[in-house]
Order: sequence, then C-alpha cells, then structure tokens
Amino acid sequence: MDSLISKLEWSSEIINAAGKQRVAHQIASMVKDGDILGVGSGSTVYMALLAISERIKAEGLKVLAIPTSLEISMFCSKLGIPLTTLYENTPDWLFDGADEVDPNNWLIKGRGGAMFKEKLLIASSKTNYIIVDDSKLVPKLGTNFPVPIEVFPQALLHVEAALKKLGANSILLRPAKGKDGPIVTENGNLILDCYFDEVNHTLERDIKAITGVIESGLFMGYDLQILTAENN
Amino acid sequence: MDSLISKLEWSSEIINAAGKQRVAHQIASMVKDGDILGVGSGSTVYMALLAISERIKAEGLKVLAIPTSLEISMFCSKLGIPLTTLYENTPDWLFDGADEVDPNNWLIKGRGGAMFKEKLLIASSKTNYIIVDDSKLVPKLGTNFPVPIEVFPQALLHVEAALKKLGANSILLRPAKGKDGPIVTENGNLILDCYFDEVNHTLERDIKAITGVIESGLFMGYDLQILTAENN
Repeated sequence: MDSLISKLEWSSEIINAAGKQRVAHQIASMVKDGDILGVGSGSTVYMALLAISERIKAEGLKVLAIPTSLEISMFCSKLGIPLTTLYENTPDWLFDGADEVDPNNWLIKGRGGAMFKEKLLIASSKTNYIIVDDSKLVPKLGTNFPVPIEVFPQALLHVEAALKKLGANSILLRPAKGKDGPIVTENGNLILDCYFDEVNHTLERDIKAITGVIESGLFMGYDLQILTAENN
Repeated sequence: MDSLISKLEWSSEIINAAGKQRVAHQIASMVKDGDILGVGSGSTVYMALLAISERIKAEGLKVLAIPTSLEISMFCSKLGIPLTTLYENTPDWLFDGADEVDPNNWLIKGRGGAMFKEKLLIASSKTNYIIVDDSKLVPKLGTNFPVPIEVFPQALLHVEAALKKLGANSILLRPAKGKDGPIVTENGNLILDCYFDEVNHTLERDIKAITGVIESGLFMGYDLQILTAENN
C-alpha cells in the first residue's frame, strides 16, 4: 500500500487552522447514509473528506463521491471514499471552496484551475455549500483575485481580443512550473487570469459567449449556502 | 500587436550566456532556404530561433518550423517563423536541448514536460542536433536528473508498480504550481520523475512496454549530433 496515492499529503500548517477543523466537521456531520456527494477542491474540502472518512470507518456509512479534479479523486481513493461519476449519479449535495464571495453570494473560483468541472458539478447538484474563511468575503468581485478563464489553446488570441472588449484591463496567461510554457488544465486547455474594469451581472454570460472559452471562474446567481470557517 | 503572444519573453539572464549565443548562431547559420526545421524546447533553442528570425528578415529566407510544445509554437509565431505540422511535412533537421548526455550520446530529456513530442520529432527527423552546455555531460544517465515518464492518468498505480520492478528506487508524481494537484502535460497526461538503480541499455524499451506509459525522457541509440555551448 506504499503507493504514490497513499503517500499524498496536504501541508499540515494549512489544515490545522481551528476554524477550518470546525467547518470540516460540520460538513461531515451533514452526511447521511446513501448520499451522493459532489466534492470540490481546496484544503477545507480535504479536511471535510478526512472527517467523512472517519465516519465511514466508525459507522460503516455508505457514500459515493463525485470529484472535480484528479487531486481530489486521488485523495478520495487514499481515504477509502468510493468514487462515482456524473454518468451514473447526480450529487445530492456538494461542498467546495471559493477564492472570493461578494454580498450577492457571487463567487470567483479557479485558483486551482478546476473551475470548469466545479461549475459543472454545482450546476448538477441540488444543494451547494461553499466553505470559505472571512478573508474571502469581499465587497465586490475582483478585489483580490482575477477571474480565471479556461480557453481552448488555439482560440487564445481571439479570446484575448474579445475579453478586452468586455473591459478586461489585465490579462495574464497563467504560467506553469514543472513544465515549460503555460499551465495546461486537466481538460487540456489554458487559463487566462483577467481583471475587469467592472464585474457586472452579465459578465459571466458575456465571457462564456466568446468562442473558445470553455468556462470562467465567475459564479453568479447559483443557489449557494455560504459557510464561513472563522465565524463561531 | 500588443497581444499575449507578442509579450512573451525569456529571462534575459538565461539567454545572455556567451556560449549559448555562439551555438545559437551556429544553428542559425546552418539553415538553408526551404528547410523544414524541427524545433525542440529550452533557452538555447529560443536563442537559435531569434537568430533564425534575423536571417529571415535580412535575407528573406523561407523556412517552416515544426514545434514540440505550445510554448515554442507561440515563440515561433511571435518571431515570424511560420509553422507547419507532421501531417504536412517531415523535418529536414532538428535542434533541441537535453538535461543529460552520456558518453554514448544517450540522453535524458523532459524537464520541460515535452519529451513525447520531442521524441516523435527526433524519430521523424533526418538529422538531429542536440545543444547542451558542459554541465549536461555526465558519465552515466541519472546522475543529476531523474527519468521523466509520461503516464496516462488512470494507469498511475499500474505504471508505478511496473516501474518498481524495473529498478526504480524513487518515483515522484510531478506536482503543479498554478493548478492544484499534479502537472498535466500538453497531451493531458501526468509525469513521473524516476531514479533507477541502473540505467541499462534496454531500459527505454522496458519502460515503454508498460501499458499506460505514453513515453519516457530516455533517448538511447538515436542518431544525434551533440553541440556543446561552452566549448570553443
């Protein structure tokens, strides 16, 4: 069992925050026998998976997880949480993180590059819990993070020009470390990190309407429950 | 023309090494009108492309380039060097870098994650020039660099077990920066960085024989001309 997957670890300084521990256990306590769980990405998601795996071991709880990334697939596998797919099942509920949350419960996601599958899963799930700490609550989107946009590689220049027309004032092709050139997503695409003059209520649709855009990390008007890790 | 591609740059401290300048101009001086060039990866390759683009501008030289990565495609585009594909053309000759070269002219390549297309292009090209500096010349492969192995994601555990049987004593799943989880290659696969007890003459074929392995960064017995950047 000394495989690459069994050796996966998350940095202990990230996961030991007390607020995250509390919300991770809150998520785990909500799991019911037979649930199909949509599983997002990030450190708090990982801690919730740890807590869920303890309930599986202690209570023989039966759940199936639909992951949003290779990394989370591997962690579920390591923790003994069985996987399923959107071909076979629909999530009863989902938990995920976010990079920014505004007062409308609109989100920016995608620092981890998995926003396409995350949005697909949120769109497929009946109930969605978004776990964040206080630092992610912002008066308006684009305060601390750019909007990540996943782009079909050959569409790069077309998409760039169209984004400028939408008011993008800073566009970066996200670089890779560990390979030369740009990062490549798990879907084989590139990511543009964009700041806009204004994030207005049509921007998510306007970005998605550009030919060559796979998906953006803007989430506007989704049915979301926001759980904050630092508030008690 | 202020596009993402026009703004691509290579770190000036990397490309200003005098030895690299010399070998880059040596490569550029070998280009003949009408050549189909296979173009590998790395800083010296980029400098050779710069020198070739100067000859294109000055002499109206007509060449076509077949690149091995998204990054090199973008640089060729920026420099006005027209691209072609293996569907349409075969390289007359190729230039590329390497991470290690042993006394047999066997190579380890793949630090940049592009070794699958690099090997495909070397196998397709009539003549191959490998540009390295003295630090890349080693008594035996695996001295400073692991062997990178591109793996179909779902085959990860099968490949890991098979590599251990081939004498791999260290296997790392290459992590990403800029996305969560492992790096994903431009072909949608993962990379394992492996050190072996011994790199013997059958290892390249033995690795490739494993189901789930796309390609390795071992190059043994290819017809290569080694050009060193520091020797005058």
